[in-house]
Amino acid sequence: MTDPTAEPGAAAPPSGRSEPNPQAERDRALMARAFAEAEAAAARDEVPVGAVLVEAATGRVLAAAGNRTEADADPSAHAEILAIRAAATTRGRPRLPDCDLYVTLEPCAMCAAAISFARIRRVIYGTPDPKMGAVDHGPRFFAQPTCHHRPAVTGGVMAEASAALLRAFFRAKRQRPPEP
Amino acid sequence: MTDPTAEPGAAAPPSGRSEPNPQAERDRALMARAFAEAEAAAARDEVPVGAVLVEAATGRVLAAAGNRTEADADPSAHAEILAIRAAATTRGRPRLPDCDLYVTLEPCAMCAAAISFARIRRVIYGTPDPKMGAVDHGPRFFAQPTCHHRPAVTGGVMAEASAALLRAFFRAKRQRPPEP
Repeated sequence: MTDPTAEPGAAAPPSGRSEPNPQAERDRALMARAFAEAEAAAARDEVPVGAVLVEAATGRVLAAAGNRTEADADPSAHAEILAIRAAATTRGRPRLPDCDLYVTLEPCAMCAAAISFARIRRVIYGTPDPKMGAVDHGPRFFAQPTCHHRPAVTGGVMAEASAALLRAFFRAKRQRPPEP
Repeated sequence: MTDPTAEPGAAAPPSGRSEPNPQAERDRALMARAFAEAEAAAARDEVPVGAVLVEAATGRVLAAAGNRTEADADPSAHAEILAIRAAATTRGRPRLPDCDLYVTLEPCAMCAAAISFARIRRVIYGTPDPKMGAVDHGPRFFAQPTCHHRPAVTGGVMAEASAALLRAFFRAKRQRPPEP
């Protein structure tokens, strides 16, 4: 469905001079906003994943969130769910068909299904997740016959930065002495 | 994984006298609680699905909820998510390994993944859902290699009552004049 190794700049001509690509530039700028949420999650000792939900026509950010499963004691408090819930409740409608979601990690099955239920137009993610991802791994939810709305998907935007943040988080967690 | 046509009473001997089966009796009583939540959801004009989250050792109900996606303008507000979230936040922990979830309809991919993340011990559902279900249909989430906790599953408890409630709800919806 997507090539997680494809960086947005990969479409640049081989001349060495990169042509301006407004879509890729906007994707990168909005992913940087999601990445800041992931960094804030790491600072709270949460798995560092961040998401922003934007109005597709304008790029206006409607909601931004980092993972809060531990802080909220809520197994559903992934960054994507929190951003979707915040935008939908603000607007007073459970469907967001004019919106795009940026998230630093490939969505899991819970978040992929919520994205589909919210009728989100496009999903842009950072690092592929072979362990828990459900877009290009595992159940590949959007390709299932039981999925009734399929967003457009772009993977691999700022993939290396998000992967490095996750690696550093889990490395630090392993090295920490166990809690009393 | 489960036989949705198997009623809890199906294990009764063919003599005609049904032996007491405490597990099946408790399942049916707790499913009746979930069914009452589904009826309350229908009365609010929500898709009639209900769930209760119980402490497995005692059968004590920790949380009960019906679907609230329209009332809350939240695409993630399925009965299962609301019950899990309520119990987890009350306890102050995102994992509920000593708990069972009763739900009137086969869980979707979003709810199946949340059930797995919450480490729920056992899932008991009512009506199979070939259109959106993700336990015994579609992605069959608990059988995926990207699923890292698999609850025990029993399907088909009070299946016909829950199916009839859903059928009546959607029939009434189709017959209603479109909203202005």
